[in-house]
Amino acid sequence: MPSSIANHPDRLFPADRAVREIARSLHAKVENLPIISPHGHVDAAMIANDASFPDPTALLLSPDHYVTRMLHAHGVDLAQLRVGGSQGASPLEAWKIFAKNWHLYEGTASGYWLRQEFTEVFGLDDLHIDDEHAESTYRAIEAKIAEPSFRPRALMEQFNIEVLATTDDPLDSLEAHDRLAADPSFAPRVLPTFRPDAYIKFWGADFAQRADKLIQTAGDGQAGYDGYLAAMANRRAYFVEHGAVSSDHGAQTPTTLKLTRDEAAELFTKGLAGTASYAEALAFEAHMMYQQAAMAVDDGLVMTMHPGVHRNTHPHTLETFGPDTGHDIPFAVDYAGGLAPMLADFGTAPGFHFIPFTIDETVFSREIAPLAGFYPSVFIGAPWWFLDAPDAMMRFRSAVTETAGFSRSSGFIDDTRAFCSIPARHDASRRVEASFLARLVAEHRVTEERAHQIIVDLVDGAPRRAFKL
Amino acid sequence: MPSSIANHPDRLFPADRAVREIARSLHAKVENLPIISPHGHVDAAMIANDASFPDPTALLLSPDHYVTRMLHAHGVDLAQLRVGGSQGASPLEAWKIFAKNWHLYEGTASGYWLRQEFTEVFGLDDLHIDDEHAESTYRAIEAKIAEPSFRPRALMEQFNIEVLATTDDPLDSLEAHDRLAADPSFAPRVLPTFRPDAYIKFWGADFAQRADKLIQTAGDGQAGYDGYLAAMANRRAYFVEHGAVSSDHGAQTPTTLKLTRDEAAELFTKGLAGTASYAEALAFEAHMMYQQAAMAVDDGLVMTMHPGVHRNTHPHTLETFGPDTGHDIPFAVDYAGGLAPMLADFGTAPGFHFIPFTIDETVFSREIAPLAGFYPSVFIGAPWWFLDAPDAMMRFRSAVTETAGFSRSSGFIDDTRAFCSIPARHDASRRVEASFLARLVAEHRVTEERAHQIIVDLVDGAPRRAFKL
Amino acid sequence: MPSSIANHPDRLFPADRAVREIARSLHAKVENLPIISPHGHVDAAMIANDASFPDPTALLLSPDHYVTRMLHAHGVDLAQLRVGGSQGASPLEAWKIFAKNWHLYEGTASGYWLRQEFTEVFGLDDLHIDDEHAESTYRAIEAKIAEPSFRPRALMEQFNIEVLATTDDPLDSLEAHDRLAADPSFAPRVLPTFRPDAYIKFWGADFAQRADKLIQTAGDGQAGYDGYLAAMANRRAYFVEHGAVSSDHGAQTPTTLKLTRDEAAELFTKGLAGTASYAEALAFEAHMMYQQAAMAVDDGLVMTMHPGVHRNTHPHTLETFGPDTGHDIPFAVDYAGGLAPMLADFGTAPGFHFIPFTIDETVFSREIAPLAGFYPSVFIGAPWWFLDAPDAMMRFRSAVTETAGFSRSSGFIDDTRAFCSIPARHDASRRVEASFLARLVAEHRVTEERAHQIIVDLVDGAPRRAFKL
Repeated sequence: MPSSIANHPDRLFPADRAVREIARSLHAKVENLPIISPHGHVDAAMIANDASFPDPTALLLSPDHYVTRMLHAHGVDLAQLRVGGSQGASPLEAWKIFAKNWHLYEGTASGYWLRQEFTEVFGLDDLHIDDEHAESTYRAIEAKIAEPSFRPRALMEQFNIEVLATTDDPLDSLEAHDRLAADPSFAPRVLPTFRPDAYIKFWGADFAQRADKLIQTAGDGQAGYDGYLAAMANRRAYFVEHGAVSSDHGAQTPTTLKLTRDEAAELFTKGLAGTASYAEALAFEAHMMYQQAAMAVDDGLVMTMHPGVHRNTHPHTLETFGPDTGHDIPFAVDYAGGLAPMLADFGTAPGFHFIPFTIDETVFSREIAPLAGFYPSVFIGAPWWFLDAPDAMMRFRSAVTETAGFSRSSGFIDDTRAFCSIPARHDASRRVEASFLARLVAEHRVTEERAHQIIVDLVDGAPRRAFKL
Repeated sequence: MPSSIANHPDRLFPADRAVREIARSLHAKVENLPIISPHGHVDAAMIANDASFPDPTALLLSPDHYVTRMLHAHGVDLAQLRVGGSQGASPLEAWKIFAKNWHLYEGTASGYWLRQEFTEVFGLDDLHIDDEHAESTYRAIEAKIAEPSFRPRALMEQFNIEVLATTDDPLDSLEAHDRLAADPSFAPRVLPTFRPDAYIKFWGADFAQRADKLIQTAGDGQAGYDGYLAAMANRRAYFVEHGAVSSDHGAQTPTTLKLTRDEAAELFTKGLAGTASYAEALAFEAHMMYQQAAMAVDDGLVMTMHPGVHRNTHPHTLETFGPDTGHDIPFAVDYAGGLAPMLADFGTAPGFHFIPFTIDETVFSREIAPLAGFYPSVFIGAPWWFLDAPDAMMRFRSAVTETAGFSRSSGFIDDTRAFCSIPARHDASRRVEASFLARLVAEHRVTEERAHQIIVDLVDGAPRRAFKL
Repeated sequence: MPSSIANHPDRLFPADRAVREIARSLHAKVENLPIISPHGHVDAAMIANDASFPDPTALLLSPDHYVTRMLHAHGVDLAQLRVGGSQGASPLEAWKIFAKNWHLYEGTASGYWLRQEFTEVFGLDDLHIDDEHAESTYRAIEAKIAEPSFRPRALMEQFNIEVLATTDDPLDSLEAHDRLAADPSFAPRVLPTFRPDAYIKFWGADFAQRADKLIQTAGDGQAGYDGYLAAMANRRAYFVEHGAVSSDHGAQTPTTLKLTRDEAAELFTKGLAGTASYAEALAFEAHMMYQQAAMAVDDGLVMTMHPGVHRNTHPHTLETFGPDTGHDIPFAVDYAGGLAPMLADFGTAPGFHFIPFTIDETVFSREIAPLAGFYPSVFIGAPWWFLDAPDAMMRFRSAVTETAGFSRSSGFIDDTRAFCSIPARHDASRRVEASFLARLVAEHRVTEERAHQIIVDLVDGAPRRAFKL
């Protein structure tokens, strides 16, 4: 009879016995360290309100587009999964579809995390995630999340999350963050992150309205581009006052550009009027990336960037179910050329921290590690999106370490809206770090003593250093 | 004394004992499954006619440009190898050159397959492939292929090939395929594949003549672009009637483009007249890729694409020996952007199957796996050309699985004109799949029970599903 | 108590016992072969003059930008490290900064080489490279380099360097090389390399002056472009007469271009006048790469190229400390398209040898291996810059071997100005080759007997063959 592999103590460790032995001892060193999550998509209000989670489908399935996309690829209508508020099936029916197709996730990162959640968070037997047991597992999760110990705040403490950053609209009042910070009975830090994408991309929905509102709200009474720039700086300051440590930018490309005030203002006017070409929109975005860096030098917010993704490639799905529904597709990026203007001016600016992320693996060894190996401002962003999976994380480590060592990385980034998967994600990362280091120890490239220090630094020191925590 | 490694039961399996043990058991599960070869370049007439193979050089050496190119790289004149009908040496002399240089293939995919052919198909001692034994091995192969049991049909049944797709000109009568299908004594299916490249690329030899002939033959009496489009659809239908399951496209780039009828007709006129620029030729090809997809939605042919190759880079070699002589060189491709217009319109069209292949490994994790992880129409094309080798296949699996799982792939594609290498190629692929899965089992990421199901699906289920077999 | 790993006999070998056993035996075969270094940046005058090395900091730290950049990334001012002639700290103080930060190099290639140098060349305990022992290790190195046995010539013989190529200005008299060649008591060959970059790039410092001087010195009395071309050929001939075997080209991109004489002359005039656009400068460089190839066909110099690097990306550092100070950042290259004009004309020219290097790993499997697998002129350049590190070298071998075998490579290239690191670099490469081959043996892909022949050829035969030594 097969037995579950979910909680096998050696999961993700290399098969070789000697290496595995080392990996075990390295992992033991960091297994129980608190979770630092400096970037992600959990909703602060959810934690602040601390209501029970809704049904299992709404908690684990519908909002997680890494999960729903796989079912969609196998012909399941997203409406059946209640994606984007759709209701083509009941929560239980949606769950049954998922359970029946659970085998599709074999070998995937999502499958690994879900398996760990099922067993470690919900106490299920993962071998029962199937057609036959679909209703009983649904009911079991339902019962669990009705318990007070499964409310967000309790879970967050149970998960040993010390810091959790959210991703927020520049005009958000950050009231939920304030409530959490003001509560002496709640120890974890929940920090906002300044994410101005929608106020920068001319081609985004409602750009003009958003920009107008930004100027009106925080433009110091100035109009047009000057008001816009002032409002950006003011809202960044507001975020800093409310605990933010970073701004985050889903730029189309890594290009940065320093336009004159008048050039930028002219583009901005076109953007508001809806008359800018796509090339002009990209130029304005590149200019604003430069400006965000300039502001970061002043206000100290860490700047993270993750370019290189065609968003919402399937128009019908976007119209029907909204964005973040699984059809964002990465493309190749040029960090070396793109960042040049910004790094020429701010690359050695005191206190400036810039963290490039990528879903284009080719830039790890070619561009990001060389940049981080010279510029004190550049930290190597952890594997992102499709790359925060065991094999990909191992390739990442191999690609960057020989050029930039272990000391220049951002620490693991879970980047997730799947709250219950956070412990599994961080643990998987720690297991991969242990496995990578164990190989270097076995190959006599690092002493075991140093490896113990390095893994603690990777897990705990690196994110604190990179994100100024 | 060295002993041959050719038939070592553990060849290609990982060295680690525990992992190897698992790999062995996984491989045993699929070792004897029938071969499904949904894309390749074997000639249907050869099988239909069932004549004895010609001499060893004509069978194994001259037509296989993966083999001849290596000798060319070491200074051998292709004429000495009887490439492209040249006769700079006798078949035996050509064979001697090859045998003397056999060591050059150490570590290569071609070397691996040839070694398996020599030993398993021809019963030779591969340690005798050298200068000293060149004539005796030549004579031994010569004797073998004179035996009735070495005729194509007999071999095909001995090789346990259930399905073999050929690659055919759109105007081919498919008479050979018909003869085979009509023969009740011959069990394997030999299917045609619709390959219209030469009728789409303005820059190809004789484009205008070919297009004219296409229109005349199947254009429903219409002229120009309308006749051309009708003829394409009609010949696709003809192929479907004669058993084809797929169309194949060696597009220059993965770009797809939806032009209006008039825009396309204008380009087509220029193409016929020989006045189109290269950019216009590429635009027309991109438009025709879109059109092929539209037709596939109607007629159900699976669409395979393998862009990103500079063909015939050495003009002198092309002039002297023709195309397919070893100097096609891959370049980087952009699938994410290129397919956008096509997937926007047909990405979720019922029954549409699109299989992208690549020789640019970077798109596996960055573009192809994410596409196949959302679009039900996109299947992950197996490693292609230079990448269907053990290490490259392992990198492929590692690159795509964590994002798209095991269920979205095309199955192994041998893509070969080297008939006798087919069993070795498929077996090598099965060994790599077993090795990859064995590691996941050893790392407690997949149960051994599930791995047994997965490998059967990868080898047998995937190609049937992707190619509608 | 931790013990040093520096001299562990199994360092860099795979952990698996069976594979390690094979790797050991393969490494033993080549461990003591002489070092052939056909490309690097050691100064011939230093060897010819044979003076003692200056202080430890000037020998090991200040000029090695792979080392100083890591400290810079951690906030150390390059002036404190005496980079580019700066004197922000005494040599001992600079050394102390380095020693204190030695842990930053864990896992890096530089760290590996330095550790080997400290222990094998200087007899230090590498566990004493720290804050506490900084002064004593400094003094120990200081004492060592004062000994006559630590003069460059003695070390070169002790290092068992048979051939060492330097990199030289086209107008260099090569007097130092002549002195060395004329000395019967000095066995190693020190060969010049023709590096005309500064005479080709319009955007380089003092381009016009350099070009003028070149024409005046060697232009056969001709003016302008004709004199320039003649002078190039003449100085190449001068280098050949003085022992050079190769020319080296740090081209911006791999593009080659065949312009007419008049087109090229017009660009050249603009270049001299400082009125050429960047695109025109690139076109001229591409044309000159084609011309260098044409000259190589005539004079037999091997042509090496390493494009794809944004040089001196940080203007302030360039101004303050000069070039080669750690902020050159690689970018993606297109070898397949770029080399087409050159290979069309010279790809099979007798005696022409072209060796492409890259810091963009993606071209190894996609472009370089396919090119070298057909064109007799193309040899696969060894991993370069950030890629000559254990994991990267392993990825390289895996990427190229299945397509091009073992016989088409350049052999290891240390490319270093860090003289004392040469033995460690070559030994690391040999260990990686042994490890890669050992895996193939363990996987029954190559016999152990053949692997022994292959590794000798990789280490000794390949560089002699590729560089005509």
